[in-house]
This record gives sequence, C-alpha cells and structure tokens, in this order.
Amino acid sequence: MTDTRTETDSFGPLEVPADKYWGAQTQRSIQNFPIGWEKQPIAIVRALGVIKKACAQANKANGKLDARIADAIVEAAGEVIDGKLDDNFPLVVWQTGSGTQSNMNANEVIANRAIEMLGGTIGSKDPVHPNDHCNMGQSSNDTFPTAMHIATAMTVRDVLLPGLDKLASALEAKSEAFADIIKIGRTHTMDATPLTLGQEFGGYAHQVRMGIERVKGALPRINELAQGGTAVGTGLNTSAGWGEQVAANMAEITGLPFVTAPNKFEALAAHDAMVEMSGALKVVAVSCYKIANDVRLLGSGPRCGLGELMLPENEPGSSIMPGKVNPTQVEAMTQVCAHVMGNDAAVGFAGSQGQFELNVFKPMIAYNVLQSMQLLGDAAVAFTDNCIAGIEANEARIEKLMRESLMLVTALAPTIGYDNATTVAKTAHKNGTTLKEEAVNLGFVTEAEFDEAVRPEKMIGPK
Amino acid sequence: MTDTRTETDSFGPLEVPADKYWGAQTQRSIQNFPIGWEKQPIAIVRALGVIKKACAQANKANGKLDARIADAIVEAAGEVIDGKLDDNFPLVVWQTGSGTQSNMNANEVIANRAIEMLGGTIGSKDPVHPNDHCNMGQSSNDTFPTAMHIATAMTVRDVLLPGLDKLASALEAKSEAFADIIKIGRTHTMDATPLTLGQEFGGYAHQVRMGIERVKGALPRINELAQGGTAVGTGLNTSAGWGEQVAANMAEITGLPFVTAPNKFEALAAHDAMVEMSGALKVVAVSCYKIANDVRLLGSGPRCGLGELMLPENEPGSSIMPGKVNPTQVEAMTQVCAHVMGNDAAVGFAGSQGQFELNVFKPMIAYNVLQSMQLLGDAAVAFTDNCIAGIEANEARIEKLMRESLMLVTALAPTIGYDNATTVAKTAHKNGTTLKEEAVNLGFVTEAEFDEAVRPEKMIGPK
Amino acid sequence: MTDTRTETDSFGPLEVPADKYWGAQTQRSIQNFPIGWEKQPIAIVRALGVIKKACAQANKANGKLDARIADAIVEAAGEVIDGKLDDNFPLVVWQTGSGTQSNMNANEVIANRAIEMLGGTIGSKDPVHPNDHCNMGQSSNDTFPTAMHIATAMTVRDVLLPGLDKLASALEAKSEAFADIIKIGRTHTMDATPLTLGQEFGGYAHQVRMGIERVKGALPRINELAQGGTAVGTGLNTSAGWGEQVAANMAEITGLPFVTAPNKFEALAAHDAMVEMSGALKVVAVSCYKIANDVRLLGSGPRCGLGELMLPENEPGSSIMPGKVNPTQVEAMTQVCAHVMGNDAAVGFAGSQGQFELNVFKPMIAYNVLQSMQLLGDAAVAFTDNCIAGIEANEARIEKLMRESLMLVTALAPTIGYDNATTVAKTAHKNGTTLKEEAVNLGFVTEAEFDEAVRPEKMIGPK
Amino acid sequence: MTDTRTETDSFGPLEVPADKYWGAQTQRSIQNFPIGWEKQPIAIVRALGVIKKACAQANKANGKLDARIADAIVEAAGEVIDGKLDDNFPLVVWQTGSGTQSNMNANEVIANRAIEMLGGTIGSKDPVHPNDHCNMGQSSNDTFPTAMHIATAMTVRDVLLPGLDKLASALEAKSEAFADIIKIGRTHTMDATPLTLGQEFGGYAHQVRMGIERVKGALPRINELAQGGTAVGTGLNTSAGWGEQVAANMAEITGLPFVTAPNKFEALAAHDAMVEMSGALKVVAVSCYKIANDVRLLGSGPRCGLGELMLPENEPGSSIMPGKVNPTQVEAMTQVCAHVMGNDAAVGFAGSQGQFELNVFKPMIAYNVLQSMQLLGDAAVAFTDNCIAGIEANEARIEKLMRESLMLVTALAPTIGYDNATTVAKTAHKNGTTLKEEAVNLGFVTEAEFDEAVRPEKMIGPK
Repeated sequence: MTDTRTETDSFGPLEVPADKYWGAQTQRSIQNFPIGWEKQPIAIVRALGVIKKACAQANKANGKLDARIADAIVEAAGEVIDGKLDDNFPLVVWQTGSGTQSNMNANEVIANRAIEMLGGTIGSKDPVHPNDHCNMGQSSNDTFPTAMHIATAMTVRDVLLPGLDKLASALEAKSEAFADIIKIGRTHTMDATPLTLGQEFGGYAHQVRMGIERVKGALPRINELAQGGTAVGTGLNTSAGWGEQVAANMAEITGLPFVTAPNKFEALAAHDAMVEMSGALKVVAVSCYKIANDVRLLGSGPRCGLGELMLPENEPGSSIMPGKVNPTQVEAMTQVCAHVMGNDAAVGFAGSQGQFELNVFKPMIAYNVLQSMQLLGDAAVAFTDNCIAGIEANEARIEKLMRESLMLVTALAPTIGYDNATTVAKTAHKNGTTLKEEAVNLGFVTEAEFDEAVRPEKMIGPK
Repeated sequence: MTDTRTETDSFGPLEVPADKYWGAQTQRSIQNFPIGWEKQPIAIVRALGVIKKACAQANKANGKLDARIADAIVEAAGEVIDGKLDDNFPLVVWQTGSGTQSNMNANEVIANRAIEMLGGTIGSKDPVHPNDHCNMGQSSNDTFPTAMHIATAMTVRDVLLPGLDKLASALEAKSEAFADIIKIGRTHTMDATPLTLGQEFGGYAHQVRMGIERVKGALPRINELAQGGTAVGTGLNTSAGWGEQVAANMAEITGLPFVTAPNKFEALAAHDAMVEMSGALKVVAVSCYKIANDVRLLGSGPRCGLGELMLPENEPGSSIMPGKVNPTQVEAMTQVCAHVMGNDAAVGFAGSQGQFELNVFKPMIAYNVLQSMQLLGDAAVAFTDNCIAGIEANEARIEKLMRESLMLVTALAPTIGYDNATTVAKTAHKNGTTLKEEAVNLGFVTEAEFDEAVRPEKMIGPK
Repeated sequence: MTDTRTETDSFGPLEVPADKYWGAQTQRSIQNFPIGWEKQPIAIVRALGVIKKACAQANKANGKLDARIADAIVEAAGEVIDGKLDDNFPLVVWQTGSGTQSNMNANEVIANRAIEMLGGTIGSKDPVHPNDHCNMGQSSNDTFPTAMHIATAMTVRDVLLPGLDKLASALEAKSEAFADIIKIGRTHTMDATPLTLGQEFGGYAHQVRMGIERVKGALPRINELAQGGTAVGTGLNTSAGWGEQVAANMAEITGLPFVTAPNKFEALAAHDAMVEMSGALKVVAVSCYKIANDVRLLGSGPRCGLGELMLPENEPGSSIMPGKVNPTQVEAMTQVCAHVMGNDAAVGFAGSQGQFELNVFKPMIAYNVLQSMQLLGDAAVAFTDNCIAGIEANEARIEKLMRESLMLVTALAPTIGYDNATTVAKTAHKNGTTLKEEAVNLGFVTEAEFDEAVRPEKMIGPK
Repeated sequence: MTDTRTETDSFGPLEVPADKYWGAQTQRSIQNFPIGWEKQPIAIVRALGVIKKACAQANKANGKLDARIADAIVEAAGEVIDGKLDDNFPLVVWQTGSGTQSNMNANEVIANRAIEMLGGTIGSKDPVHPNDHCNMGQSSNDTFPTAMHIATAMTVRDVLLPGLDKLASALEAKSEAFADIIKIGRTHTMDATPLTLGQEFGGYAHQVRMGIERVKGALPRINELAQGGTAVGTGLNTSAGWGEQVAANMAEITGLPFVTAPNKFEALAAHDAMVEMSGALKVVAVSCYKIANDVRLLGSGPRCGLGELMLPENEPGSSIMPGKVNPTQVEAMTQVCAHVMGNDAAVGFAGSQGQFELNVFKPMIAYNVLQSMQLLGDAAVAFTDNCIAGIEANEARIEKLMRESLMLVTALAPTIGYDNATTVAKTAHKNGTTLKEEAVNLGFVTEAEFDEAVRPEKMIGPK
C-alpha cells in the first residue's frame, strides 16, 4: 500500500500518492478516465510549464501576483520545462476535451512544488493556490490550445524539420553521386525512356524539400497563441495587453516567434491551424511513401526483382528463409506514413466538431499531430541512416536493362513519325529483336542514322 | 423562353416548366440549391417509385385511400420504377439532408401524372394531392432512408455482386489454368520460396469470394426498412401493422427480402447499416487494389520489369512513346478502389453526425454508397473482360527467375540448420554462384543430397 | 443507327460517330472503360484546350510546326477553351491513370477540327496529325498534370475564392450588425461567460478568411506546370526553354501566373501539390462545418431549442409535419463538407501511390480536387444567399438566457476567490435561485459589490 | 553502465542487457528502429506466447522436436502467456513490416528462458535454438498474422464486447426507466412530433446491440489462422495437417474457436479480415458518437441549453469558471470515436498495400485495430459508469418544452389536411399563440375536436 495524503477540490477530499505533487483534480481524472494506454505527450507537459512560467512572470510584472509566489511558480514551472517533474503527469489523452484536467494537473503540481519551495504544507493550497495563482488570468480553454501550439512548434523545430532535412540532404547527395548513371525510366510500371538515377533521386529530394516548405508554411498560424482568450475568447479576467505580454514571454522562453492570436474566439472554438499542420504532415507522408516504395521496388531481388539498387543489409530478414535480407527501413517508413494519413483523417474529423465557443477534442488532436510529427521525424532519421545513406547502384544491371528497352524508339519519333516508330517497337517486341535491327529492316533509317538518333545520353534532357 | 405553368406550395406560387410533372417544392429546390454537378442517383428515384407504389397499395387495402386515386398513384409510380419519368427528377444531392425535396419531387411528379391519368388539371392537386395522397402515412424521414436501403439492395443484386462474381470466376479459372506453373515467391518484394502461379491467383480469387461474403453479410440490415417510422420513428399517422405491410409490398415489387426495421428510431436517426455496407465495400476495394497492383507489377516490362505475366494490349499506351502498352485496366481499377476508400471515410463521418431523431446526411450517404457500388461493380467487369481474362503467363521467364533464386535454400534448413543454410545463401549471393555449388563446397551436403532436398516442385506444399 | 466514319490508330480501324470529332483512341476508351457515371470534368477539357493552343504557338514560334497547321490547331484549341466542343469529350474519369486517353481525345478532336478548317478529310490525319502535330513536344505524362494544375487554378479563381469571399463578407457584416448583442457563451455545450453575438460571428468570419489564405498558400505550387517534362521528366523531344515558353503562353491565355515546374520528375511522378491543395480544401471544409453546425444549433427551435438565431425560411420543411421549417442550407453545406473530407482521404491515398516516373491516379485526383472546389464554392454562395444573409438575432431570447446564466459568477472569482465563487454558483444551481441572492446570503459580497462586479457588458473583453 | 552479455545472429555478435532474455536480433531491432513511442501491444506479446506453446506441443507430438526441449519451450512460452516476461519485449511497432523482429524477440526470449530452465548457458542457443526449435515449422510471415488474429479475438472477448454489452444494458435500463416520459422530438434539430425518452434511449441501445452483432459478424474470419503457411503460404517445412493441429492447440490454450485459414496465400498477403474488423469498429464508433453527442446536447445547460437530461457531476469542470460542470465522459467517448475513425482509415490504406506474397504493414495494422478495440471497450465502461448510469430526466423541463411545440399540429393533418394544418402552425408561430387557439380561430376544428386529436400520449405510436 502506497502512502497517501489528502487533497481537496470543490468535489471533496481525495487520497493521492504521498510522493507525487499532483492534487485532487488530477487524482479524480485518473479514477474517472481509465481509458486506453495513451498518456498526454511529454511535449504537452513541457509546454504547460512554459505557459505557467510565462503567465506568472506577467502577473508579477503587472502587480497582480505577489512577487514571492510568482517567483516560486516560475521556478517550479521551470522544473516542468526541464523535465524534472515528468512523472507527475499521469493523465491519459482520453479525458475532458478541453484538457482541463491536464491544465489542472500542471496547476496542482506547480502549486505544490512552489508551496514546498516556500516551506508550506503540500496540499494546503497555501501560500500558492492552483487556481487563484497558478492559473491566474488563465482558463483551460485558452491554456490548453496554447500548449498544443507550443508543443507543435517545438516538435517541428526539434524533431520533424531536422529529420526531414537530414533525409533531403541524403537524397541530394545520392542524386549527385548518381548523376551519370543512365537508367531506363518506367511509367505505368512499364519500360519508358531513359533518365539518370541522379534525376530520379533528385525528384525524391525535391519532394522532401517541398515538404519542409509545406510544414514551414503552416507554422505562422501555429505560432499564434490562444492565451489571453480565457474562458470563451473574450479575455475576461485579464487586462488589456495581457495576451501580447504572455506570448512575448513564451517566445522568450522557447526561442520561437510566438505572437498572440488575432482572433481568440476562433482560437478556442476551432483548431484549423492544427488541421492545417496535419494536412502538411500528410503531404510529407505521401511524399515519403512514394520515395520509400520506389526504393523498395528498385531494390527488389536480389535475383528475381528489378535489382537496380542495393540497399544496406541491417539484420537477418527472415526467421525461416536463411540469408534473406529485406528492405525493413522502407517498411518502417511506409507504416509510419500510412499511420500519419490515418491520424490526419482523425484530426480533420475532430477539427470540424467544435460547438459554440469551444472545440472539445483538444487532447486527441494534439496527440495525433504530435505523434505524426514524432514518427515522421524519427522515421526520416532511421530511414536515412540505415537505408538511404548506404544505397549503392547496381550499375551493371542498370546498364543492361536500359540497353534492352524498346522505348528508346521514342528518339526516332520526331524523325520517322509516331506511327512508323510504333511499328518498329511492336515488331522488335514480337520478334524479340533489337530496335535497330527492325528500324533498319523496315527501311525507316540507316544504321548510322539510328546510332546518331538513339543515344540514351542524349535522351535525358531537352535538346 | 420555356413554357411554364404555375404550381404552389405553402410558400406560394412558382413557375415550373410546362413539360415537366414536378411541382413547386421541386422547383424551389432547384432554385435554392445550385450546388455542384451531382444529381440524385437514378437508383434512388426508382426506389422512391417502389415506395410510393407499395404505400398506395397498402393505403387502398386498408381503406384509407380512395381506390381510384390509389390505382392512379400505383400506375404513375410504376412509370417511375420503369424509368419512364427519369427526366422529371432534376434535383441535386446537396439539398435538405433528409431528402425531403426528393421525396416531394416523387410526390409531385406522381401526383401530377396521376392527375393527368384521371383527366384532371396538372398542378391542381385535385383529385391527387402530393402530400395527402402520395405521401399518405409517410414522412420524408422514413421514406428517404427506405429509398436508400432499397436502392442499395437493388444495386448490390444488379451491379455489385454480378461484377464481383465475374471477377472471382475469372481469377479461379486462371488459378486452375496456372496450377502447374511453379514460380518464385516474393515477400518484402524480395525473392522468397516458390509457389505456383495458380496458388497466387487462388489467393486473389479467395479475396474476392470473401468480399462477396462480406457484402452479403451486411445485407440483412440493409433489408430492414425505415418505412412506418414517419416523422420521428414513432409511426405517428400510421396504423399498427402498416410498416410490416408496406415492407411486404416492397419485397413483392422488387423480389428482395425486405422487412420492416425492428427499431424505427435507430433507422431514422442513424445510418449504421449504410456505414456497415460502406465498410464492406472498402474491404472489397482493399482486396481489388492488392490484386490489381500485383497484376501490374507481375506484368511490368516488357524488358525491364518482372515480366512474369503478359497482359492484354487494349489500346495505344502513350501519346509520345510509340509502341508502348500499359496496364490501363489496372489503373482504372486502382483509381476506383482509392475513390471508394475516400467515399467510406465520408460515409463514416456523415453517419456519426445524426442529431436527436434524425440524421440529415441522407442524400450524401446514399450518393457515396451507391457510387462505390456502381464503380466497383463496373470496374470488376471491365477489369475481368479487358485484363484478367486475357492474362497469359510468360513461362520461360517465370522458370528462369525461379531457378536463379537463392531462397530455395530454405529447403535445406531442416537438414543442415538455419545458420548453415544462411551461410550457403550469403556465399552464393556474394560470389554470384549457385546454391548447389556453395552448399557442396562448404561441405554441408553432397550433390545428390542437394538435388534430393531442393526441388521446387516439392516446395509448394507441406510434406 | 447513328452514322459513323472510320478512324484508325495503331491498334487498327474503328467506327466513330460521324457527327463527332473524336478519333479511334477516344472511341476505344469508351469501349474499354464502361465504368461509372463520372465524366472528365469540363475544367479539365478546357485546360487541355489551353495547353494545345500554348504548345502550337510555341511550336510555330520555334519553327518546328508549319505555320498553317499551327494556326489551325490554335484556332481549334480556342474552340475547346471556349466550350464550343464540350460534347466531343465523352470519356469517363476511370480510364488510364495518366489521362492518356483524354489527352488523345483533345489531340483527336483538335486535329480533326483543324483538318476541317483546312479543308481536309476528317479522320485522315492529314494535314494535321493528332500525335505528330497536336501533341508535338508533349506527352500525356506532362500534359495531363499540366491540365490538372490549370483546371485547379482556374477553379480556385473562378469558383472557390469568390464563393468563400462572399461567405466571409456576409459573416463580417453580421458580426458588425450583431456587435452590441451580448449573449451567453457556451463551452462544452454548457453555459459559460458572456460574449457578443458579433464576436461569435467574427470568429466564423476569421475562419473563412484564413481558409482563403490557406487556399492561396497552396497556389504557388499549383502554378508550377509539368509541361516540358514529356515522357519521364527529362524533356526528351523538346528543346531547351520549351517548358518556360509554353508556361508563359499558358499564363498569357489564362491570365494566371503559371511558371514551369522546377523539377519535372517530381511533377510527373507525384501530385504533392494537389494533395496539398486538397488539404487546404479540407481545412476550409472543417471551418465551414463548424460554422454551419453552430448556426443550426443556435437557430434550433422554434420553441424547444436554443432559439437565439432566426434563419430564413426558404421552403416547406416536412412532407408530414405541417409548418415545419428546417435549416436546409446548413444541411447542404455540412453534407458538402463531409464529402470534401472523404475526397481528401482519397486524394491523399492516390497521391502516395506513384511508382517510378509516374503517378497513375491523375484523373481520379483531378476529379476529387475539382469536385471539392466546385462544391465548396457553390455551397458557400448558396449558404450565404439563402441562409447567412438573412439571419436575424432573437434578441429577447438571447437576453433572457444570458441573464439567467450562473457563469456570470466568474466575474466574482478574482475578488472572492475560485472556491467561494464555486460555492455561490453551486448553491444557486441547487436552489434554483440567482447568483446575486446566494452571493449576498453567503456573505461574500454586498448587493452593490455584486452589481458592480457582475456586469455582462464588462465581461466581454479584458479590463 | 548496465551489465551485458554477448549474443549473436548471422550478422555477428552484439551486447545485450545481462538481465534480459532477448538476443541479438531483438537488440539489433532496438538499435535500427529508434522510431516513436509505441511499443508492440502486450496482447501481441501474449499471443506470440500462445503460438510458440501450441507449435512446440505439435512438434513434440509429431516427433520432430525432442520432448525435453519441447517441454521447456512450452513452459517458457507459458510464462509469456501469463505476462511474466512482458518486460522482455522492448520492440516498437515501427519495425519490419512482417513483425519478424517481434517473432524473433519471442523466439529469443523463450529459447533463453528454456535454456535457463534446462541448465544451459543463456545466449548459447544450446540446447534450445531460437530458429531451429522455437520457430520450428514457422515463419514470421505466418506467425505474426496468427498473433494478430489471436490478439484481436482475445481483446474482442475480454475488452470490447464486455464494454459494449455493459453500455447496451445501461441504455436499455434507461430506456425502460424513461418509458413513460413523453418529450418533444427533434428533426433537423427543429421541433418535431413527440416520442418518449424511453424510445430515444431504446434507439441508442439498439445501435450498440447491433454494434455487438457487427463485431461478432467479423469474428469468423478473425478466427481463421495463418499458421501453417510458413514463408509464402505453401506450408513449406511443415507436414500435412500441421496447420490444423496448431490451430486446434491454440483454440485449446485460449478457449476460442480458432481454425486454420482455408487459404494461406490470402492470409499472408492480405489482411482483409483485419480491415473488416476495423470497419466493424468504425460502425461502433459511429454509433457511440451519435449517442454521446445526443446526450451532450440533451444535457446542455443548466440554464441556457436544452436541459432535458441531468448528467452526473464527476469533477470540477473549469479552471476559471467556478461551479461549472461539463459532460466530460461524453468528450472522452467522442474523442475515442474520432480516433477510431482515423485508425480505420490507416488500416484500410495499409490493408491495400500488400505486394506479392506478403503484406508488410502487419505491426501497424495490429496496433491500430487493437488500440481501437481497447479504447472503445474502455470508453464504453467509463461512459457507462460515470455518465449513462447516472443520467436523470429533468421531467418538468421535458414536459414544458413538449407542451409548447407547434409540431403537435401533425396530429391534425389527417383530419384537416396538410395545407390547413400548415396554416395553423404558421399562424401560431407568427402570433406566439397556441395551436389550439389558432386551429379553433381559423375554424378548422372545435376545441373538443382539437383536444381529442392532439394528445401527445396518442402520438407516440401507430394508431
């Protein structure tokens, strides 16, 4: 039996673990919501620390909050930001849709820790009250969406963009390394005209670079914070300029360009900015899926597939087939991408369901967006380190396939016409012969003309 | 300027085209909802004909509706069922969410056509009133969901299941025809142990057959009809047994096993049965996608792909590359499947959004489900006729690839152990040699033992 | 029996309707793809006209195409742009995934119409050949994605943005008109602190305005055109600068800021720009859903709902309940929004499925994105004209509800503390009394203090 | 620094924590896949225990596996089943798409634990080899899908169905308790004809009961197990009857009606059965969403909403608004439902992406389906215990609203006709009067006739 102490809220007293800082509302939430495995993401917890610190600073500055209390709150909130109190945030995602209980979790933990710092009795709410002091000028309705935006912006900066940039750079490096390898193109999965392997990887790199732009394009609205709207967006119980001030404080604390949201009613009742970010993440997932799937197919084999790429071998591939090696990083990445697309569907649904002054799908939206970013960022790193970086071209095979392709005939079309060129290709296909043999046999060109026209190295760009 | 006549509803008089049977409410809807291109599906129009006929029959039988009026309604409704009045149903999908206006469209057209049959003046509502007579005992709230279910059940019977059955049969025929062709298996897109091409197609056929079962499994709840619930599910303004009677009439008219819904409140306020059917359609789409994509990859080439299958050539494949032939039926099918998955997402969303006694996404749900069924049924037929039925195996290539595979080593593992077998495969891969060479060289087996153990024809089933 | 003429392609001769301009490949597509009801959107057809005109201009300018032929193509393509040949484009969405057949449809129609202009024999391909002349320097693989982008950009300009702007303006007008109406706020659907009805509509307007920004934010990548990539992105069979030139021509023709895509490989093999645009459309749908649903709930009644808004009455609401009026425009809008979310799921899926040098879900992606834009644009107009513009506030009811709310107690919290304020509200709730009575009875404030603190007009902004 | 020991696989030696049973392949996976937070669900781990036990039993019975080794494996696997070794399964979801590494994790842990039991040296693979013995007759490709199905079936039985049944029973109890409370119906959110509150809850209960049927309807295909297909579905390295035997063993161990899958090719290459189950879960989510949202709206207030229901008060609702109580259980439930819909989209996507003989989205599909089931099951219990069970009807308010409704006029329509009834309702609405006053004033009925016809208690069912 764990030791407990008694905490109270307006619903009455409740026993909480003696070695934790949380209070009655947090404990009540544990009991009322025994749902699933998914805890509030740590990024949200840290963001709540940022908010509580920023607000206490502002409340001290404008004289509403006693300096001693404010300083203790700032210090305790700092510990939340630094991750020292992570295990004091036990709540699950599936709680009140405004995140009220996680906001109160932060208020209670910071209040008790501040009380402790000030020599008071934990649980006494004296001299630091979780609502009156830690939550001063705040409502869960503006605090939690602010935490969502801060956590999102930080995860973009710290996890997602570094991962995507690493992947893009690796693809660019391969594009350069493979710049002179001419290979057969494939459209509709069928043999087409040639291009370089470098061009192919250049297309992938461009996708990822544009993905980075898309995520950045969604950030300006993420950087707008709801704080200051309080209960319904009006800013009741704050003073003029408060929203601007706390946003400035949060920007200072995090080093990110946060500003106060221009319309607080929208900021509480909708999460369009999160839906937008999720949409950008979906495009990234779509891009990464295409890239990874191509890598898988181009690396298929070793003897019965396309075999143009050789992927790094990282682990035994099969528990039954000895010697098998599989494109496992591709599989991790594509699973992540599929999952992100599901998350996006969930976020869109949830985003549409606001009612009146509040959208009450906040924790679930945050969970999905943050998970998508973490997964894409992590998978980009693993995929780069354990797959892309080590890819080698099977040049012999690439050359062989390219030389055999019937689609080199396309280079003849401007000279002999589409219909005659078709006859050449179809005849060679039927007879199992080369284009040259048939083009000459059919009398459309001389050997020399053929050799002059059909040169793969001249087919990889405009004339 | 088209000729018009004046029709009226409780909002006043309105000009309608003189050569159409519809009345004021239909015309008002045209004016109020100039949204998109998507008309109410014809299957819904026909189903409304079934309902109006069945109800008039019941109203005549229980003496509430004058026999002469009832007979005229039955006859006019019969013309709707037979498609003779299709061009009198101009309304779009994006209207009142209960389908009220399409129900009124049916009431107005049938009333005016019945009036005409009885020698009255079109637009006079005398002797046949669109509400009091054509809609007797009915509300849009029970009529439209009934139409949704009837249209769905008929489309399942007439379009979807015949299409899927055709596809399954063709796949089964190929499975049999390819029963003796041993080929390399591929897992993770990498070479694996062998199987027969017939087994591969047998897996596809099983998917489609199970898809048929899944659709059938969703039908019992589609066969339950809301009619008799009237405005809110209570059956106000009907008499006891009415729901059962009209369901029996509808079953008689259509030849389908319709029954009255056991809970009319659920039948109006939710469309779980449609969401369920959409889910079954999604599984069918998922199955067809996998099959089609495999066919595409196995048929890739002709010279630089896997090249195991030869797909029928149906049309020129490229406007620029002469002689190119593409797996176009695969592309039509996979586009359909992707679209059906999107429809399913829309239907699920809409299904969740009922409020109190009514779900007001009825036309949109019906449109999506009916479209999914039509597309899957049509695509199954085109894909079968123009692709599956004509597929041939490239036996020489299949044999060549199979013989080269290193994964035949798996047959050695029970004898020499997983670790030794791994060494054999890896060494052969590194040296570009055969398994046999390395297995013997490494001293694990004699040539004779190898030949005895590694026989593809013995690797395609349990011992 | 319709009159026919014989057309030919590389697969042989085929009868086509004598009164149509299309050729063998179009006819073959009709026969091979009897799938569904959905035709290629007209916007795609018109965009193909733009492309054919722009390319013929460039081909004339650089001397590759005989001026007489070029001029005829330009004129015939102009007729496509002007919609004069719409009924010569019979193909469905569910065809080759590169849109090859629709590209050939344009080539064939324009070639035959140009032949006709030049006095030749339709079907003779002389003097204008559909491939060699109309498709000169083009592949379906770059032409169709170019058509997708042009059609998208034009629909954004002509349908979507005007619709959204109209809606935003109407919401802003209401926000202003309702600026002085103080009402109860609702969070979690429960009574909360007050705000003005103008503030509520201001939040809606902000959502739509941001939606316009989001769509505009996705446009730069839509304005990048694939034309010039030809078969696989290399630009084979074009000359240097061709891509830039035809993009400039297309910009000139349409008045839109088109440029050539910086990476043609990406532009053919992926449709990330379309997925991105679809994501922006989804955010718009999410926003409109929230707005419409609020309007519905605030307008619920007339006697048993919230009743704060009076919506315009546009048509009889029920076929069974006399006098009923329903929020039908809300229902059309919310159905559209749900459908758009489904489309977005389909587009994301399809966008991820490119293989090697080509994504073969082009027609299906275009169809979904264009449909979403048309529906949102149209619905925004109908919703504005037939609902938002005519909304009136039920001021008496709004005032009554606001006065009764217990959440005005929040104004006391800064003075008497959160816990005491809670006691006041809970006691009033239990006793069915007013806040003032209980606040005074409990001794927390005097009547005068209460009246000074609890003033709704002071609760609608920061102090 | 933790103590380690050396383990090896075909890629070489590797240090693993000395206090864990896992081996080199598990450790390699930890290092290669540092992606996200999501561990393989415990239900999968336990199911792998079931499989390893069942296979060792069969291998002992058919004499292929030494009895002493078999018995040790059975015992060690039993500890996995009992959860004693849960912390030896550290792998994340985002790994090889066949779940190979989690299969090897089970093989390694069980082998080492069995070695320990038999007095051998952990890590020596002697006398128990993770591949040759623990994985005998198995491949990850059949083992992991078997684990997916077992985990799903057990979670359905142990979590999902008990939760749903509890919810359905609670709704049925309320339906009975509220059987005599007549209330106003609402369609389109507007006042409609009356029904009983019991009927309303009866509709909810029916939805949940049908949801249970839908889940059960998907079970037969979940009960079919892939085990016996080994690497590609052929059953290589098993003997005839093996699949049947191990399925029987697994049925015995779990008490569930498992059978061997009729088509192993489909069972490895597709996960249609999981997609189907996910679809059933989506319908359940759709149903629960509708129910929860209705409860929220009917319970809105306390003074400014509909106020027909009084929901249990479980915790303080607001950090800023004293005394506020919110429908938090509704919010947890609706967030869960939205999330489940997203999961379903992800599962459908992943299910469509099988290639050749294998679908490599197995861990991600399992994770999503199991999460959906856990969340729905848990949320159903919490929603029942903390919300539904404690709901009370606000009978006074229900009665008041019902009496005021204009839609009672529907009862007059059969007598005076739809058009006259419309006039009555519209006049009363305009004048703010009662239906009776206007019906009599307008001369359509006498007072007595009105009173006879318009009796709510006679409007709640057919005559």
